[in-house]
Amino acid sequence: MDQEDLLARIKSPADLREMTVAQLEQLAGEIRQRIYDVVSRTGGHLASNLGAVELTIALHYCFDFSKDRLLWDVGHQSYVHKLLTGRNAEFGQLRRSGGLSGFPSPDESEYDLFAVGHAGTSISTAMGLAVGDDRLGRDRAVVAFVGDASIVNGLAFEGLNNAALLQRQFLVVLNDNSMAIDVTQGAFAKYLAKIRTSQTVEKLRRRGESIIEHIPLVGKSMHEMLHHLKQGVKSALWPDNIYEQLGFMYLGPVDGHDLGTLISILRQLRHINHPVLLHAYTQKGRGYEITANDPCAFHSPSAFNVEAGKIVPASGPQRTWTTAFVETLLGLAERDERIVALTAAMPDGTGLNKFKARFEDRFIDVGIAESHAVAMAAGLAKAGLRPVAAIYSTFLQRGFDQVFQEVVLQGLPVVFCIDRAGLVGSDGPVHHGFMDVSYLRNMPGMVLMAPADEAELRGSLELAFKLDSPSAIRYPRDRVPERSFEPAEPFVLGRSRVLREGGDAAIVAYGVSVGAAIQAAGELAAEGIDCEVVNARFAKPIDGEMVRRVLGRFDLVVTVEDHARTGGFGSAMLEYASDNGLEVGGLVRLGLPDDWVEVARRAEQMARVGIDAAGIARTVRERLAERRKASRPATGPQIRQAI
Amino acid sequence: MDQEDLLARIKSPADLREMTVAQLEQLAGEIRQRIYDVVSRTGGHLASNLGAVELTIALHYCFDFSKDRLLWDVGHQSYVHKLLTGRNAEFGQLRRSGGLSGFPSPDESEYDLFAVGHAGTSISTAMGLAVGDDRLGRDRAVVAFVGDASIVNGLAFEGLNNAALLQRQFLVVLNDNSMAIDVTQGAFAKYLAKIRTSQTVEKLRRRGESIIEHIPLVGKSMHEMLHHLKQGVKSALWPDNIYEQLGFMYLGPVDGHDLGTLISILRQLRHINHPVLLHAYTQKGRGYEITANDPCAFHSPSAFNVEAGKIVPASGPQRTWTTAFVETLLGLAERDERIVALTAAMPDGTGLNKFKARFEDRFIDVGIAESHAVAMAAGLAKAGLRPVAAIYSTFLQRGFDQVFQEVVLQGLPVVFCIDRAGLVGSDGPVHHGFMDVSYLRNMPGMVLMAPADEAELRGSLELAFKLDSPSAIRYPRDRVPERSFEPAEPFVLGRSRVLREGGDAAIVAYGVSVGAAIQAAGELAAEGIDCEVVNARFAKPIDGEMVRRVLGRFDLVVTVEDHARTGGFGSAMLEYASDNGLEVGGLVRLGLPDDWVEVARRAEQMARVGIDAAGIARTVRERLAERRKASRPATGPQIRQAI
Repeated sequence: MDQEDLLARIKSPADLREMTVAQLEQLAGEIRQRIYDVVSRTGGHLASNLGAVELTIALHYCFDFSKDRLLWDVGHQSYVHKLLTGRNAEFGQLRRSGGLSGFPSPDESEYDLFAVGHAGTSISTAMGLAVGDDRLGRDRAVVAFVGDASIVNGLAFEGLNNAALLQRQFLVVLNDNSMAIDVTQGAFAKYLAKIRTSQTVEKLRRRGESIIEHIPLVGKSMHEMLHHLKQGVKSALWPDNIYEQLGFMYLGPVDGHDLGTLISILRQLRHINHPVLLHAYTQKGRGYEITANDPCAFHSPSAFNVEAGKIVPASGPQRTWTTAFVETLLGLAERDERIVALTAAMPDGTGLNKFKARFEDRFIDVGIAESHAVAMAAGLAKAGLRPVAAIYSTFLQRGFDQVFQEVVLQGLPVVFCIDRAGLVGSDGPVHHGFMDVSYLRNMPGMVLMAPADEAELRGSLELAFKLDSPSAIRYPRDRVPERSFEPAEPFVLGRSRVLREGGDAAIVAYGVSVGAAIQAAGELAAEGIDCEVVNARFAKPIDGEMVRRVLGRFDLVVTVEDHARTGGFGSAMLEYASDNGLEVGGLVRLGLPDDWVEVARRAEQMARVGIDAAGIARTVRERLAERRKASRPATGPQIRQAI
Repeated sequence: MDQEDLLARIKSPADLREMTVAQLEQLAGEIRQRIYDVVSRTGGHLASNLGAVELTIALHYCFDFSKDRLLWDVGHQSYVHKLLTGRNAEFGQLRRSGGLSGFPSPDESEYDLFAVGHAGTSISTAMGLAVGDDRLGRDRAVVAFVGDASIVNGLAFEGLNNAALLQRQFLVVLNDNSMAIDVTQGAFAKYLAKIRTSQTVEKLRRRGESIIEHIPLVGKSMHEMLHHLKQGVKSALWPDNIYEQLGFMYLGPVDGHDLGTLISILRQLRHINHPVLLHAYTQKGRGYEITANDPCAFHSPSAFNVEAGKIVPASGPQRTWTTAFVETLLGLAERDERIVALTAAMPDGTGLNKFKARFEDRFIDVGIAESHAVAMAAGLAKAGLRPVAAIYSTFLQRGFDQVFQEVVLQGLPVVFCIDRAGLVGSDGPVHHGFMDVSYLRNMPGMVLMAPADEAELRGSLELAFKLDSPSAIRYPRDRVPERSFEPAEPFVLGRSRVLREGGDAAIVAYGVSVGAAIQAAGELAAEGIDCEVVNARFAKPIDGEMVRRVLGRFDLVVTVEDHARTGGFGSAMLEYASDNGLEVGGLVRLGLPDDWVEVARRAEQMARVGIDAAGIARTVRERLAERRKASRPATGPQIRQAI
């Protein structure tokens, strides 16, 4: 067999079962090469996938997931699975428009059961599938593949606590690379890490052998099987651990890169009619010295080159909103000792790693536990500190009830800094931040802001720290505008700002859409259409005086936001207008449609939904034309229109 | 000292410390009597408070919560705390308008730090307070008081996992009565229950003594103290338990009704600079044979009398939406075997106990784990079943992200039956269901329904089970209308129904507000104002044809909903109208204000916010008068107005 051909031969997982372990090991190498090559071009989750190669191969070798159920937790580590399930050819278009999603996607393959991107859910959905299959009389094995960062999420715990009651096959594979997106947080992770450092390869090898030796033959009674297994895994490091306490049978830890051992164990676990947790050690970034040595940098890089052993972004340096946020926060925190910052396993993604470097004792990373992060922030505020909770919009959804009860109902001045608000580009529908304005706007006393540029980010943060009430500031996964709209003006609660005067129409933009609105106004000016541009700044409280003025003065008022049209900033204006008896016939709301916006680059997505400069200009142009047409007599001007 | 006087003498917790243990025991009896007397009149959480008497007294005896921090989890068990912190006089007005909240409330007392009513949050907020106090240089002890049902909630686990890292005093009191609202669910609860049944009073007593004996004297080094304590509590039942695995020091279980032992232990724990979990066994309903024998029935009864050993509601039998729901569901489930039902620790509150009685193997109670319930429902739907997730509106907020990712993004036909939607009466702001329409309306493909009567509840459920998409049906904590609006008509997706024709104005009501609208129309008819009444049925998809018709035909269109005005059903109509260029000058939206609606009876709350029949009629009357006035010439009709 040609050294280079193995991956090409895999049309479906069944083809794996034709191979020897040695061939599978060769295949693992080819898969690593393929992932590295593609991700260095497309960007994506690199290190976690390199660490999951052997486990994924072994699972597909031992189970038949055309029938059995495989649930990915978070799902960013499913690239190997994609390569093994007939998607090698499309893999080159990973995370690109029309290409493969970076997460499991039922639209792509019947091997992907759930489109996921949020952590801690797989045990619960797997349990639902297991109970459903049992009721429907189907004999299918169920496997949940969970990382060590996800398994400490509260939802995963709820799932384990419930799934332990099952009296049927139910396998949780714990892929323990001792790293969340960053180093995994919490007491449990600390304990895992302590154990891990005491392990040698030799110990892992012997433990694997012992487990294999004692896994019972199929056909014995359940009781005998469990008894036998219990006896056999006495050598397991950790027999009274949390999973055993919950009622799972615990096996491990084993070497998650040892294909032979993994296959021997998993082959048998298919037949154990009891919840089992298999704990496998893996190395995040495995296979490349550079990725294994710095798995944080390679967690989810953009397209990159490697020069002199360092990662170099292919697109050159860019100043992001994230960077602008943390640098502004650093300045404010220098002057106000009460400022502390929290994140939920995203110190890099939220920029707070820089805050940590400067103010380590004022920084808290709680791990993938957004609910806890929000509730803890409430406690910090109650104590008298000024906590900033920096959480992606899509993940703040997991702290929704704590924002409600612990923060807003108490009126506590927690500042939510909502990164990745709006369209997120290649991560697609599982990560868009399209609901935050809508659900936060329901909460009495909440202040919602969106800055238009870096100076405004500073202004909004300064105001937030002056308020005695909860507030939220949203900004996108994007570059910050190169120049700020001059002159900078401080934020005043509930007051918008006119950035451009004009007489034909008004564009009222919220947050990042201000830049697009200004650009659209420029384009339109060249065509002789003169637009006023308002930077709304606040979705709550809405600037009622501004609403009155623009609706009173202009026949056409277009609102723009990088958020769902349903319930968003434009709706806030509409509700205000309606409540105050203002004429809203001229109000047009632009934003995301009531539909999923598929994977593409962020700029493509913005264009697709019509909230980029061209889309805004088009709307203004068309609506003005319609209005002109409507106000003309029914006959006569047709010739002029044709010109 | 007079036998009857002790409770009256307690002006603040400091007064406890003047008493002997024997006096405290007498006080415990008086407190039980007071709670039983008041709750039998006002309704409220009875059994859990009767079980927490001694623990609460002991905590206030040993800590000084005018300075130290006491966090209640859920908070319905805080009545004893209220009686001890200067609120005995007001306690007679528990859960009534202008009276005490049934939950902790910072507005009532500085001893109440957070207004809470949702479970699992106290460890997280306590940790925030602890870290905040440390940073601000305050020496305050922190205690979180958590029930066995709450501590298995995912958020509580996240809190424990993070708080275990603290290097300071941090006490979690686990009040283990082996009952959630109903029997606590999950593997862990099962394990706790198994241990519990093996305990004798004598064993508990000896364990308490052993702990006391070995608690180290203050002043030793941390290391010595912990070592000493570890040695001493070898007799603890459960030395390698989940809390120890997480890094807490575990003590217990001890008898939670033995005041002497509790005081001896807690007095010392004040000084242990390490996270400690004290596990106390209590009896839910303790002190009254009837409440102890049936703690489920006495979890949160309405005002009641006890006759022949049975609870008899003071207000006579009432057919609730909850009852109507479960009886309808039973009928449908008889005909469709795919229907399964889930709840999160609310089998009684959601009515599903009746479903369980009939279809035990199609019923799932996951405990207080709404996130898991929703994600598991998604798995069940994916397997091909038709799951109904019956969850209170306020608690569904905790499954928001799972509704989004696991259900709606996958397009799975889970049916959410949202009980306690709208104003909830005496539970107040922590329990109102005022946001569900708003946040669910953002989700592409979601179908939102609200029935007006019992026949409609059936109709909406029938449609929900026919759909291939997710849907949600909301109904309030209230009586179902005695008679249905005739004739019954099946639900057709996105189609409203005209219930009354009229020419002067239209009232478009959503769900339970239909009854009020019909009544208002009756009142107005007597005054010569002829209103059309539309039963909207759907908030999503909205009935666009209806919107066009009413806005085209009537100068006044009033929408009514038992939900926030922000982003609710009325806003959906407004958005539709705006998107379709309809004139909305005549649209008036009634609903809950952007403010907290305080504790009162539900009917009082409805009147206060103007969504009862009188409020609707008043709005129609006033708006029509304004319109008439506006359409008259500026002079002339003033005499007629004065008449």
